[in-house]
Formats: sequence, C-alpha cells, structure tokens
Amino acid sequence: MALVPAALRTADDALALIKPKVRAQSAYTLNAPSAARKLNQNESPYDVPPAIKDAVLARVRELSWNRYPAFSPESLLERLARRHDWTAEGVLVGNGSNELIQASLMVSVGEGIGVVTSVPTFTLYRLMTEVLGGRHIGVPLTPDFQFDVDALLEAASGHGARVVVVNTPNNPTGTPIPDGVIERLLAETETLVLVDEAYQDFGGPSAIPLLPAHPRLIVLRTFSKAMALAGLRFGYALAHPTIAREITKAKLPYNLNQVTLAAAEVALDNPAPFVEVTDRIRAARDRLYGRLARIRGLRAFPSAANFVLVRCEARPAADVFRRLVEDYGILIRDVSAGQGLANCLRVTAGTPDDVDAVAGAFEAIFGTSP
Amino acid sequence: MALVPAALRTADDALALIKPKVRAQSAYTLNAPSAARKLNQNESPYDVPPAIKDAVLARVRELSWNRYPAFSPESLLERLARRHDWTAEGVLVGNGSNELIQASLMVSVGEGIGVVTSVPTFTLYRLMTEVLGGRHIGVPLTPDFQFDVDALLEAASGHGARVVVVNTPNNPTGTPIPDGVIERLLAETETLVLVDEAYQDFGGPSAIPLLPAHPRLIVLRTFSKAMALAGLRFGYALAHPTIAREITKAKLPYNLNQVTLAAAEVALDNPAPFVEVTDRIRAARDRLYGRLARIRGLRAFPSAANFVLVRCEARPAADVFRRLVEDYGILIRDVSAGQGLANCLRVTAGTPDDVDAVAGAFEAIFGTSP
Repeated sequence: MALVPAALRTADDALALIKPKVRAQSAYTLNAPSAARKLNQNESPYDVPPAIKDAVLARVRELSWNRYPAFSPESLLERLARRHDWTAEGVLVGNGSNELIQASLMVSVGEGIGVVTSVPTFTLYRLMTEVLGGRHIGVPLTPDFQFDVDALLEAASGHGARVVVVNTPNNPTGTPIPDGVIERLLAETETLVLVDEAYQDFGGPSAIPLLPAHPRLIVLRTFSKAMALAGLRFGYALAHPTIAREITKAKLPYNLNQVTLAAAEVALDNPAPFVEVTDRIRAARDRLYGRLARIRGLRAFPSAANFVLVRCEARPAADVFRRLVEDYGILIRDVSAGQGLANCLRVTAGTPDDVDAVAGAFEAIFGTSP
Repeated sequence: MALVPAALRTADDALALIKPKVRAQSAYTLNAPSAARKLNQNESPYDVPPAIKDAVLARVRELSWNRYPAFSPESLLERLARRHDWTAEGVLVGNGSNELIQASLMVSVGEGIGVVTSVPTFTLYRLMTEVLGGRHIGVPLTPDFQFDVDALLEAASGHGARVVVVNTPNNPTGTPIPDGVIERLLAETETLVLVDEAYQDFGGPSAIPLLPAHPRLIVLRTFSKAMALAGLRFGYALAHPTIAREITKAKLPYNLNQVTLAAAEVALDNPAPFVEVTDRIRAARDRLYGRLARIRGLRAFPSAANFVLVRCEARPAADVFRRLVEDYGILIRDVSAGQGLANCLRVTAGTPDDVDAVAGAFEAIFGTSP
C-alpha cells in the first residue's frame, strides 16, 4: 500500500542486480493447510516435558536479555564433545543444522564447483549450492530408493566435485546409507564428505566414529527431531578442528540466542525423557510402515527415520493428500513434485494414536479396511 | 583427545578443499577479558523490563517446542510493516540483522563482484564479501571520520560494483551519513544500496522514507541495540517486495525460533519503555562525548550512535585499554587494529553511572581530573 507506481516501474532494474541462478530458483516454501493432526514436518509428536521447560525458562528469566550471548558457548561445546567423544575445538553450533549446511557450503563452494548428492533428498543442499554459484550433481537413488553406491562414488571422483552430501537416513525416503559407504567415499574420493544425520537417532549407521581418522568428514546433527526442539532451532556439526575453524568464518557471530543455548544445555543434562520418546517414535514408525505396507494399491518403503514414504499406485497422490486433510483432518507432506517421487507422500510417525488415525484413513481411502 | 595421529597428518589435504579467500581470512573473533562494567559491545545498559520478560516467557511456555515455528511469521511481519508504513511483503526477519546482511550479499555477490563500503566500518561486510568470492572496495572516511561522499559515489559508479553498504551511524566512528547522500547513491549509481541502520534509533537520518520510490534500496534494522534484545537475536530488512523475495532464497527456512518471535512481538506491542530508554542512552552518549572531548591528549569524535570513538594522542591505546580493565574494572573495545583507527578506542554509552565511571577513569589516566 505504501508502494508508489515509480517503485513498480523500476523493480526490474533492481532484479537485474540479483544473480541469475538465484532468480531462476523457486524459493523453499511450505504451503500447508491447517489440520488437527500435523504429520508433515517430521517433528517429534511429544513436547518437551514441563519440568524441562520450566528449568529452561527459569534460567532464561535471570539472564540479561540486553547482552549478547557468549562469543563461543564453551560449556555447551564441551557437553557436545563429551556426548560424542570428540574434541570441543571440533564442534560448531548453529541455528538449526541448516545454518551449518549453509556455512559448510559457503567456505567450500564457489563458481562452478561441484556438489554431489543423491536425489531425491533434502532440497536445501541443491538450493544453497546454486545460490553460491556451484553445480549440483544429482545421483538418482535406485528405483526402490536405495543409495546407488557405485554411481555416488563415480560422481564424487569426477572432475570438479568438491563436496559430497549424504543425508542418512535420507529425507524423504527414509533410506539409511549402508555400512561402510562413508568409509569408501572418504577412501576412494578426495572431496569433503558432509553427512547430515538429522534423523540418525531413529536408525542407520552414524559416521561419528570415523571422525578421528578423517579430516575431510563433517557430521551434522540436530535437536529438531528426536530432541523435540524444532521450535528452538538447534543443530551442531562435528569436524576436524582445522576444518571447523574454517567453517566458523562463514558462521554468523552470536548466531545462537540465549534461550536456545540454555535449552540445549538443559536437554543435554536430562537425556532420559528424549531417549524414551525416541524409542516410542521408532516403534510407531515400524507399526506405521507395517500398516501402510499391507494396503493394496499403496507401496510403502522401509524407513530408518521417523517417517514413512509411500507411493500411491491405485489413485493420484494429490487426491489422497486432499482427502486426508478434508475428511480426516490429517496433514502429511505431498512430495510428489520431487525427482523420482511421482505420486509419493511422506507421513511422519507420530503418537500411537496418530499411527492408528493415519493408517486407518489410508485404509479407508484405498478401500482395504483391515 | 579423541584425535589420532592419522587425522593430524592429513588435515592439510582437507584444508585444500576450502576456498583460498576463506583460508586467508582471520575469523571474526572477540577476545574480551571479563570486567564489572561492560562497555565493549554497544549493548543497551538496561535489561528488558521484568513485566515484558514475564509476558514473553508465559507465552513461550504454552508453545509446542517440538513444532517448527511458522514458515512465515505473518503477524510479526504485519506489525513491522505498520511500524514503518511499509508493506509486509517487503519485510524480512532474521536471526540478528547479520543474517540479512549475509543473505543480501549471497544473492547478489559472486566471483569478482564489487562491494563498496566506507572504511573503517563493521567488518562483517568485507568478510562476507570475500567468503562469497567478491571484491571489497573500501573507501576511506575523511581524517575526521566523515563520509567521503564524492569518493563513495565514484567507487559505486566504477566497473564491477554491484552493492554499496552504508552503515549509518557508522560503527565504530559514530558518523551519520549526511542528509541526501543515500538519495544521491540511488540516483547517480546503479547498485543495490544496503543501508545498515543498526544504530539509527540513536541519531542520524533514516533511509526508510526512500523505500517507496527506490527498489534498489535495502534497509536493515536490529533489536539488539535500542530495543535491548541482543541476547535474543532479532533483526529485519525492509526492501521492495521483488527484492525481498529474492533475498528470501538465501535465508534459511525457520531461521527465527519461537522465543525470538514472541519477544519481538511483545516488544513491538510495548514500545514505551524502549523509547524512554533510548532517550536516556542518547543523553548519556552526549554527556560521555562532552567529558571525553575535554580531556587533553585524547581526541573524541562526535557520535550519533550509542558509543563514542576516541583517539589516544598522549599515550598508547593498548595501555589505556589495559589500565581501564585492570585498575577500573571497565571493558571497552580496542579498535586500533582497524584501517585508519591507529590508537583508537570505542566506548559504549551506558548508564549515567557508567558514564561517570569511564569518563572519570579516562580523566585519571590522562592526568586531567576535572
């Protein structure tokens, strides 16, 4: 409303100052209708226990909000290092692990530099690579969404590849990287290997034990899933101190606010409820997969994460998505626009009640009541 | 401790995968001794009032911490738009304004692209430009730290300049950009003009009224200074919706946590205490400048921000800095390593008591008791 016609007349001139690869991108967006059951973002269905919230809030109330957070949050870095038997100089904390994906790519990727990922996977790797002027090299998963290890190794050995990103278990397919593949990537290629373990608490191997012998390895973890802190945004990276020091240069100073720092510390000091909840979510995922796999006309893919990917064979995914929202009040994620994901939907494993509701709705829609 | 010799042996190979311009940078760091009076980071000396803290914390306790924040925080964007008579589609919120500096540069700066700033100024502009492969073009301020308008216009018109960053009032000199200069930059050059108004609440002109007619203008604001929320990290950008949409592509999804969103809303709904405190800080700054300007052997520069820059002429700045910490328990910022800042120190204007303490200490050190 405050815009005058002159502004609109010359916006195109301004647009010419934006990099062409950025202009060509659609922004990362989420258009989600509201629904009573939210199974679209792979969140934990269990909120942080009230006692932990109260401990965090009591600590936060006493802090001076007018003061910047510590330049380097030493006590948190030490706790994370102990958690993974690593060194605090090799730990970086971020505003969600997204910030550390961005920083890792910023220090390594420039004009024409190749970044290899499997596809489909989390889209942010490709989007950030392109913003930085790099070339995204996508290696298709196999038709049943397994990692194509030989193709991945070949792409990573090719000219111009400087980074390989492995999301394990992979979003949105749930596929864990097979044992030994990260070792082979490190042994047989010369790239940085960025392993995003956002969902590793729910299954699959971790690359963390490989850190001591491999300075080209960067491992990312988040508190947004198993640790139930999606709303507070906390992630971290583990890497050789030499590489961690370089990534720090693209990380914003004071990137973590006081509340997130306090919440991460309190959560680390009280791990028991999060471990218990993770077990429950794993059981819910297995039960969800079992129910969905039995539905005729729907194909469910085994998952090591806290979600299950399905392909709608008997009816269009868009219709199924819409009916779930409108008739059942259940919001899942329509991922069917992704490469190789025609007619696919992703369902977060929630509470046992969520599993019953969403599996029951799929059964009813596909006409196979149990 | 978990590192094995093999890791150390090959860290150099890993380092070769980091961009040379990144490797060449020293990281942005802050090594600050602890002291009773903290006048080194241009923070507000007044914490957020307890009633506002309680309102924020009560709201946060009821939120589901396991859920991601809203993809786009509409009600906050609307409040900010109303505050500045702008449109919500032209407002971007960030994890501190630093994140929006980074995102603005990411979408516009690639290999060899020129970014013009005055020098000395906030170092992050140069550091981010270099990480992105761009060329930083520094235009020295005049010897008494005024903007060299003709030189700035000339540099911005030169080949390859795509962005001009103006920090006004300028950190660490306190200099406001003269009236009319931003208009001239927009009229006489073809670059994006990024005006960082982190300190504008304390003085100098604002570029915000120019937004409707100028789609190449991006204005950055922060709640870390006058709004006393440095610990919660909140900043925002105002720009033409067409440009805002492009900058969004380099901004991380869910970049703002729930607590910061709540705190920003509550602060915007309760502006009175922040306005009052800003008046008090302005008065403290003027009194601080007056006291420091009268000291023989010390040169104080007029400031429109919440700090005062001084040049130690009679004794080395490093000694003055050290004595303030050791003998008086006062921490200020030694900025003497910056270009053109030989023997300069930056003193944040705190409470009236802080002003008396730090001015008194300078008077004693320079041997001119009032």
